[in-house]
Amino acid sequence: MAAMAAAATLTAATSSLLRRSALLRPHGLRIPRSFPPQRFVRHIASSTNEEAAAKAAATTADTGGPTIFDNIIAKEIPSNIVYEDEKVLAFRDINPQAPVHVLVIPKVRDGLTGLDKAEPRHAEILGQLLYTAKVVAEKEGLANGYRVVINNGGEGCQSVYHLHVHVLGGRQMKWPPG
Amino acid sequence: MAAMAAAATLTAATSSLLRRSALLRPHGLRIPRSFPPQRFVRHIASSTNEEAAAKAAATTADTGGPTIFDNIIAKEIPSNIVYEDEKVLAFRDINPQAPVHVLVIPKVRDGLTGLDKAEPRHAEILGQLLYTAKVVAEKEGLANGYRVVINNGGEGCQSVYHLHVHVLGGRQMKWPPG
Repeated sequence: MAAMAAAATLTAATSSLLRRSALLRPHGLRIPRSFPPQRFVRHIASSTNEEAAAKAAATTADTGGPTIFDNIIAKEIPSNIVYEDEKVLAFRDINPQAPVHVLVIPKVRDGLTGLDKAEPRHAEILGQLLYTAKVVAEKEGLANGYRVVINNGGEGCQSVYHLHVHVLGGRQMKWPPG
Repeated sequence: MAAMAAAATLTAATSSLLRRSALLRPHGLRIPRSFPPQRFVRHIASSTNEEAAAKAAATTADTGGPTIFDNIIAKEIPSNIVYEDEKVLAFRDINPQAPVHVLVIPKVRDGLTGLDKAEPRHAEILGQLLYTAKVVAEKEGLANGYRVVINNGGEGCQSVYHLHVHVLGGRQMKWPPG
């Protein structure tokens, strides 16, 4: 059961990245020891699986352990960065749900595995994340509109336990939002 | 054409509120003169219409004029408030897309018709909005997860031009987020 739950923590984003990146094929694999083995399990991408995986992951993943975002921040895993400053990093989602799909994350997680862990002292970084979402949308030319999404926990479909803001645009977004 | 575009600015939220509230039936209607007449047009709620209305609204609505949220903040229109402090107000969406669906808004718009109008000075209120979203989710008992959404512009499905954060939970949210 533990193995199943662990496998379920795998996200579409991480698995797609691992599958697609030439740098990460078995012969060239360079992953720090802290990187959980369950992230290598193959994931069949579908929205149903994403929801189920996120729900299962919530029971085991929100432990404050390292995530793939640590490797992306450290540039140990390649990502397509669209904005970076001292506090935040924005890079393209490897499994985009719209023509533009960027993730904005704090470079230092500081306990923010998810939004539900926010304390009053986090208001500053939360504001910077949202402001960066706006900057990214502008840089990406989303003058016709866009949607900003934060998933929290299993029912929110959160799959990586490092707070991240999705910026989606380049198509008409629908309602309800998932 | 102008009338059509104006009618299209009507949102599901505003129209549902106007239809359902006993205080707002014709004989008891008390709406300030600044309240645009197009908000009284009947709206057939559907996700398709919501998208089309939002898209059309974007061409005319982002003018900085008053919105229904001014009336809600001023308590001229009843709303189901779940949290309030000096800076922000959180109330239930009148057209909920999940068992819990709350909107969090700044009490003073300060130019923030949408997220795309954010300037660095707005980072503080943006942080407070997100932090309040977390507080609201906690108060609403969304321990299994939730989703936070900000719509911007027509393609983002924004229908009221006063920045607002949706907090949705109480069911499994799906992916993609609309």
